[in-house]
Amino acid sequence: MKNDNIFGFQAVREALRSEQSIQKILVRTGSQGQSIQEIVREAREKGIPLQYVPDEKLAKLTDQNHQGIIALISPVAYFDIEDILIKITESKLIPLIVVLDGITDVRNFGAIVRTAECAGCHAVLIPESGGASITPDAIKASAGALNHLPICRYKHIKDIIILLKQYGITVVAATEKTQEVLFEHDFVKPTALILGAEGFGVSAAALKAADSLLSIPMYGKLASLNVSVSASLFIYEAIRQRRT
Amino acid sequence: MKNDNIFGFQAVREALRSEQSIQKILVRTGSQGQSIQEIVREAREKGIPLQYVPDEKLAKLTDQNHQGIIALISPVAYFDIEDILIKITESKLIPLIVVLDGITDVRNFGAIVRTAECAGCHAVLIPESGGASITPDAIKASAGALNHLPICRYKHIKDIIILLKQYGITVVAATEKTQEVLFEHDFVKPTALILGAEGFGVSAAALKAADSLLSIPMYGKLASLNVSVSASLFIYEAIRQRRT
Repeated sequence: MKNDNIFGFQAVREALRSEQSIQKILVRTGSQGQSIQEIVREAREKGIPLQYVPDEKLAKLTDQNHQGIIALISPVAYFDIEDILIKITESKLIPLIVVLDGITDVRNFGAIVRTAECAGCHAVLIPESGGASITPDAIKASAGALNHLPICRYKHIKDIIILLKQYGITVVAATEKTQEVLFEHDFVKPTALILGAEGFGVSAAALKAADSLLSIPMYGKLASLNVSVSASLFIYEAIRQRRT
Repeated sequence: MKNDNIFGFQAVREALRSEQSIQKILVRTGSQGQSIQEIVREAREKGIPLQYVPDEKLAKLTDQNHQGIIALISPVAYFDIEDILIKITESKLIPLIVVLDGITDVRNFGAIVRTAECAGCHAVLIPESGGASITPDAIKASAGALNHLPICRYKHIKDIIILLKQYGITVVAATEKTQEVLFEHDFVKPTALILGAEGFGVSAAALKAADSLLSIPMYGKLASLNVSVSASLFIYEAIRQRRT
């Protein structure tokens, strides 16, 4: 559960080439050295988030010689979404994937992963940056599900939707901006479900790229459900339809 | 939102006889006076929780002359479940009632009330004692729904189930201790849904008194869903069936 950090050219380069899951690489602002530039290029190719930070920030993370570079190791392993999609197809399962778009609250993030795991979803996709991180609080809120369910990272929401569609998956966005209700949708088809942050909802780019926009019917005075509740209703509607 | 307190014989007696919602009455341990005994009797008749506490506890709540008795005023009004059931029947609506059995976590309590309000449930029933209180945190977790949805209190879970049945309501308990799945149940009938605390589940008395025990199908490694997620799945399964 502990976030171990790796520092220095050699160690970070090895971590990049091994199977270790790197949460993020921190680089000293203004670093110009060839070794660092090589690592930066390799991290970019592998889709690992990079952040340039002042020396003081790095000094807080270790008192040893970090050479201007620290890799934060993730408490869980990340998976490649294409590997997972291929495996699902080979197993003749019907994909049910959850895509988080801008959810920053770790409790909601954890709660969604918990329900997704209980329902047997195949993966949860999170953005490389701008979303909730896999912190001990997130793992606690997930009741440990973050250690069981494959988590994949994506760079741009639009690109990941295009990729999912290429694998024959129908991409559905949960939004209040539609009259179509989730109960009227066919979830027996391979499905990816996009969920946005409370208050903001699914991003405009995702709404535009999705195949269907679906809402949950509301009968009260309040305007919206908690996002982890919305997620559960969508996930279990798919489960219900697939059981019959 | 502020919990105002009322103290002294006269004020507490008036609060008891007015329409003010009293959360609980605190009485000084060992109080024998006739005025206090009258208030205690009246509170018991009205089903208002009583607690005997040492003088020091009362002194912390007010520095004025409390005469050994303080009424804690609830931030929301409580309703009588029979009044509500009669009103639902008159309106020709199909009752959908949520009964909380031992849920002490205020965030889960608030989250369930939020979903119940959004779905148009008619009331949420909570125990007089032993459950989560209507605190500012609960109201926040409910996104304000605690101010919109009628909340009723019950003394014993067994008695409230008997009462609900007398009004023609089918009482369903959400539990893992059954093979029957919620999707196979007829929720078009008047329904009360009993939810238990995470970890403990619905009490033995409620499981015994309920008409049906229903579970949510699970396909992962984790053993259980968050109780506010379970509640939402049950509530919206009723909504789904009633739409068609």
